[in-house]
Amino acid sequence: MIIVFKPNATKAQLKHVENYLTSHGFEYHPSQGHENMIYGIIGDTQSLTPEFFKVFDGVSNAFRVQESYKRCSRAFHPRNSIVKVGKISIGGNKIAVMAGPCSIENKDMLNNISKEIVGYGANMIRGGAFKPRSSPYAFQGLGKEGLLYLREVGDRLGIPVVSEIMAIGDIPLFQEYVDVIQIGARNMQNFSLLKELAHVKKPVLLKRGISATVDEWLNSAEYLASKGNQKIMLCERGIRTFEKSTRFTLDLSSVPVIKKKSHLPIIVDPSHPMGERELVIPMARAAIAAGADGIMVEVHNNPDEALSDGAQSLYPKQFNELMKEIEIIAGALGKTIAKN
Amino acid sequence: MIIVFKPNATKAQLKHVENYLTSHGFEYHPSQGHENMIYGIIGDTQSLTPEFFKVFDGVSNAFRVQESYKRCSRAFHPRNSIVKVGKISIGGNKIAVMAGPCSIENKDMLNNISKEIVGYGANMIRGGAFKPRSSPYAFQGLGKEGLLYLREVGDRLGIPVVSEIMAIGDIPLFQEYVDVIQIGARNMQNFSLLKELAHVKKPVLLKRGISATVDEWLNSAEYLASKGNQKIMLCERGIRTFEKSTRFTLDLSSVPVIKKKSHLPIIVDPSHPMGERELVIPMARAAIAAGADGIMVEVHNNPDEALSDGAQSLYPKQFNELMKEIEIIAGALGKTIAKN
Amino acid sequence: MIIVFKPNATKAQLKHVENYLTSHGFEYHPSQGHENMIYGIIGDTQSLTPEFFKVFDGVSNAFRVQESYKRCSRAFHPRNSIVKVGKISIGGNKIAVMAGPCSIENKDMLNNISKEIVGYGANMIRGGAFKPRSSPYAFQGLGKEGLLYLREVGDRLGIPVVSEIMAIGDIPLFQEYVDVIQIGARNMQNFSLLKELAHVKKPVLLKRGISATVDEWLNSAEYLASKGNQKIMLCERGIRTFEKSTRFTLDLSSVPVIKKKSHLPIIVDPSHPMGERELVIPMARAAIAAGADGIMVEVHNNPDEALSDGAQSLYPKQFNELMKEIEIIAGALGKTIAKN
Amino acid sequence: MIIVFKPNATKAQLKHVENYLTSHGFEYHPSQGHENMIYGIIGDTQSLTPEFFKVFDGVSNAFRVQESYKRCSRAFHPRNSIVKVGKISIGGNKIAVMAGPCSIENKDMLNNISKEIVGYGANMIRGGAFKPRSSPYAFQGLGKEGLLYLREVGDRLGIPVVSEIMAIGDIPLFQEYVDVIQIGARNMQNFSLLKELAHVKKPVLLKRGISATVDEWLNSAEYLASKGNQKIMLCERGIRTFEKSTRFTLDLSSVPVIKKKSHLPIIVDPSHPMGERELVIPMARAAIAAGADGIMVEVHNNPDEALSDGAQSLYPKQFNELMKEIEIIAGALGKTIAKN
Repeated sequence: MIIVFKPNATKAQLKHVENYLTSHGFEYHPSQGHENMIYGIIGDTQSLTPEFFKVFDGVSNAFRVQESYKRCSRAFHPRNSIVKVGKISIGGNKIAVMAGPCSIENKDMLNNISKEIVGYGANMIRGGAFKPRSSPYAFQGLGKEGLLYLREVGDRLGIPVVSEIMAIGDIPLFQEYVDVIQIGARNMQNFSLLKELAHVKKPVLLKRGISATVDEWLNSAEYLASKGNQKIMLCERGIRTFEKSTRFTLDLSSVPVIKKKSHLPIIVDPSHPMGERELVIPMARAAIAAGADGIMVEVHNNPDEALSDGAQSLYPKQFNELMKEIEIIAGALGKTIAKN
Repeated sequence: MIIVFKPNATKAQLKHVENYLTSHGFEYHPSQGHENMIYGIIGDTQSLTPEFFKVFDGVSNAFRVQESYKRCSRAFHPRNSIVKVGKISIGGNKIAVMAGPCSIENKDMLNNISKEIVGYGANMIRGGAFKPRSSPYAFQGLGKEGLLYLREVGDRLGIPVVSEIMAIGDIPLFQEYVDVIQIGARNMQNFSLLKELAHVKKPVLLKRGISATVDEWLNSAEYLASKGNQKIMLCERGIRTFEKSTRFTLDLSSVPVIKKKSHLPIIVDPSHPMGERELVIPMARAAIAAGADGIMVEVHNNPDEALSDGAQSLYPKQFNELMKEIEIIAGALGKTIAKN
Repeated sequence: MIIVFKPNATKAQLKHVENYLTSHGFEYHPSQGHENMIYGIIGDTQSLTPEFFKVFDGVSNAFRVQESYKRCSRAFHPRNSIVKVGKISIGGNKIAVMAGPCSIENKDMLNNISKEIVGYGANMIRGGAFKPRSSPYAFQGLGKEGLLYLREVGDRLGIPVVSEIMAIGDIPLFQEYVDVIQIGARNMQNFSLLKELAHVKKPVLLKRGISATVDEWLNSAEYLASKGNQKIMLCERGIRTFEKSTRFTLDLSSVPVIKKKSHLPIIVDPSHPMGERELVIPMARAAIAAGADGIMVEVHNNPDEALSDGAQSLYPKQFNELMKEIEIIAGALGKTIAKN
Repeated sequence: MIIVFKPNATKAQLKHVENYLTSHGFEYHPSQGHENMIYGIIGDTQSLTPEFFKVFDGVSNAFRVQESYKRCSRAFHPRNSIVKVGKISIGGNKIAVMAGPCSIENKDMLNNISKEIVGYGANMIRGGAFKPRSSPYAFQGLGKEGLLYLREVGDRLGIPVVSEIMAIGDIPLFQEYVDVIQIGARNMQNFSLLKELAHVKKPVLLKRGISATVDEWLNSAEYLASKGNQKIMLCERGIRTFEKSTRFTLDLSSVPVIKKKSHLPIIVDPSHPMGERELVIPMARAAIAAGADGIMVEVHNNPDEALSDGAQSLYPKQFNELMKEIEIIAGALGKTIAKN
């Protein structure tokens, strides 16, 4: 961290900062600039915040030189991390395509959709069993029963499955039934849940919070990585902005930004932010063109009857068309779609 | 809900919507406008979303006529709700002043601060024992030990205490040690936690999520109210916007907006969003002038040594000055500061 | 417009609204719903706003059924509009690539960059002569001299040129020197300027305001279209959000949203929002994959010496690589890069 | 400006930055930190941006130490600036109350409203003659005729008047007819207009742009101050955020933030952001409590018939009540309402 003093800072003001630093085990390196005295703090400053020093008398500003996350940073691990899920490897030159219904409604619908989309090239099945709904009156998911159906279809088709967890108490269930545990946007800063999932051996798909900065997102990933779980995939799913023509603003910029700052794979979910299937397709293509390691899209064989988010679910035939387009686009970047 | 069809919608398109409605147990009321056919849906539409209908062929738009929350709405309960905490009543013409340190660091500091601020008129003690920190490397709070100190000081001074819960597993602890259970901004949509707290008898202080709309906030309150806990206080604590001169943008507009839409009391926390004590004071005054039922402010006897958020903690003398100012401002609205 | 009354609205309250409507020349169509009385207003409601009616006593809500823009809407003109600039046609299956320096710094640099990028396939030259700078102390552009250089290089290479206008007084200059007049983000709601440019015969490139909704953007286009200039291209250039890892958040969702709502071509500028050249390239690819009709990118032969925005300018060789990638991606959508 | 190099930056990378600096007339002060080499740039760095240096190879980060605005900064002028308008002084311990209709609709309505509100204590009359409307089909104002009526009523009542300018060509009109020239939110970064208004002798009321940061706002003020017009008042009018329960989010935090960063007076307009009169009143009170130097509120004697923004206009009796409340609140801060 760097502390910049005001041009007219007094000796007493400098002394006050110095005392704080030394009494808390930090060394500092003073450097007299043209107008401003500058202190570089030496040591592990991850527990300090610039805001804290900014209000000391005589201090003009304070900046962090290093990111507060470490294990998830590109500096710590310069090459891309590869996360293995079943037979596919995510984070290299293979594209993951996670598809399936928003909610698992019953066994038959899940089986039918899954069979069709796997035929079109989907390499992972997604399906919600525990649903985070804004309103207490909305359909909350099938729970354990849904996970069971998901496991069955995954085993039968030989395809890994992913589903969202909502509570610490459900971790044993998820360890038994899914291949990838998804942490939803609303739980990205549920630190109690993150701390527990750090001890799980399964890969985790960490969705970005609705208003999380890229740095906060990587700090949440750091909760997992610093305590033992390195098998982390990030998932961009749109942020909240003033624009209301879509449900959220899909921040595809986060794809190259994450690639610059971190070594973790990044998946894009265009279904939730776009809200309408005709808008989902172009953004799925754009995600691959931006360099994402995969996409997660909702597909439903009868969207008009879906119990949640039917409007944004692709028809299977649309999904088939999309697969053909992203294959070409992936090719422009030297990638191919992963196969189980 | 109202569905507006396009001027050129076909009979088949209308029929498709009609079939969906009747097969799902809804009636509808058609009404031919000048250009557009309009259907008003009859029945409990809380499980439906306008987005769903917007993508049916022939549909131009769909709108909700009623809010998705019910028990928390002003329509359901036209008079202000009063929440009783110890001897004070919140939501009427008495102002709650919750003050104390960001984190409980040790017993002595908590006792010293508490004694001083209660002398200046604070009527509830706040203090964090479990801290939600963006970085896994930051101080995470004293945990149970902190709650114990809080209970002791509350009992000794005869003042109710409030602290933030982070995990379902800690509910028994909070039931034993605190008077008001605070749900932090990052957990406003931790629906698993909300569902459990609905069965608790203690009053709950529900902070607004960092990017929660007023409607989502009231829907989260509805999770509590619809399942049994009506003792809810809301707490505005700033939203995330593009502006970075403060940590968050304190949305004081939410005070009159909540008063219009809901009967629940609303408290304002100016400390976290403002981030610097010189900015906290004017916004605490403004909160009262906007009609808030109380404020929650951080005070520390030695902010330079605080383990978290020292920059935003008031000196006790500043708190004393603030109390005098808000007493006058409350008077302009016919209110007084609550006394234990 | 649709006005929904409260379930308990009185006859006097209905009468009050009726009187307002009839005395202002509007008819209305009442329709009794299950709980709510609904009035559909007949006539040209473009001068009315829902907010106005929402505060009448007894009114629950008011919604607009039609967009406030008309000529720019897809409903008004169902097929894509094609804007001709020199020999290229924008808005169909040809991709426009507008490239060049942020600011025109001198004649030689403009000539050198232009020659190189046209060799790589750029089909329009961009260059700033009048620069909107946040600070009065920053370089403000060469003015008329810059436009002169731009015209010369365009004529010599046989390529159309585009540059940004800032003041009504400069319209004659722009009519003489450029092929496309660009309206910058900061002037998207400079209605005085829009009204004047409506009478100009040249095509206009209308950038989205930094915090403009898609509807406001189309309303600004409507200022041009309704008064005579139909040769409008829109340009997405990023919106302001809480995320600061990029300068602005490039809202690529606006591409399919504009295609749904309007018939106008849409161009994407990834340079300004991304701010760093390594981030510009992936987003340029993503723009084409999302269905944009073209891109506008900054290229500089010596970015380290650029007088403005050097950090985001591509090296010519990078631009060459980008052209190859977008050619493949455009192909996946059945498009090719336009040629002069 | 401070440039922080990466721990492993090479000599050639340092040399490259050094060459850039010296060849552009800047000196630098190197300072070896524990891990990072740091250069402090000496000289007038207002033309440089941190973004520019961040992309040089070997550079880790770059920060601005001083604000890019100078004359408008508190450092430049430590005491509050006082702007004199007629007999009242704004910026000290007197509160300005600018009231009147959104649009001037005709002579009689303006006269009637003005007389009534001046009787209740308003000390400046506001009224729109040139209206910036999102839609080209909305009422655009009376133009010159409106300014004439405004001048007449101001002269008759002995009260200064303020109105919004939209085009450079109208400056002579405004010089003749108004006492304070208002620059609207949509023109805050209309730099051509700002440059011209810098040469005008009248005080200017500079509204904050819809998505302008506090720093951009002060930079726009700097356009005026650096070129000759120091009589600047700022006006907070709400920013654009995700929250849609109000039209804009009134950022009252900007009041203490501006007071910290600048010496300029700040006025608050609660009418436009709140959109409903019942919400305007609490926020007008809150503005004064936050330390604003005045408020600007819309009042209409017959809001249901207003040609623009009737929903947000106070009834005169409400304005009377508001004046009594803010007088008490101003008193809590040692201020009184200004009198002509």
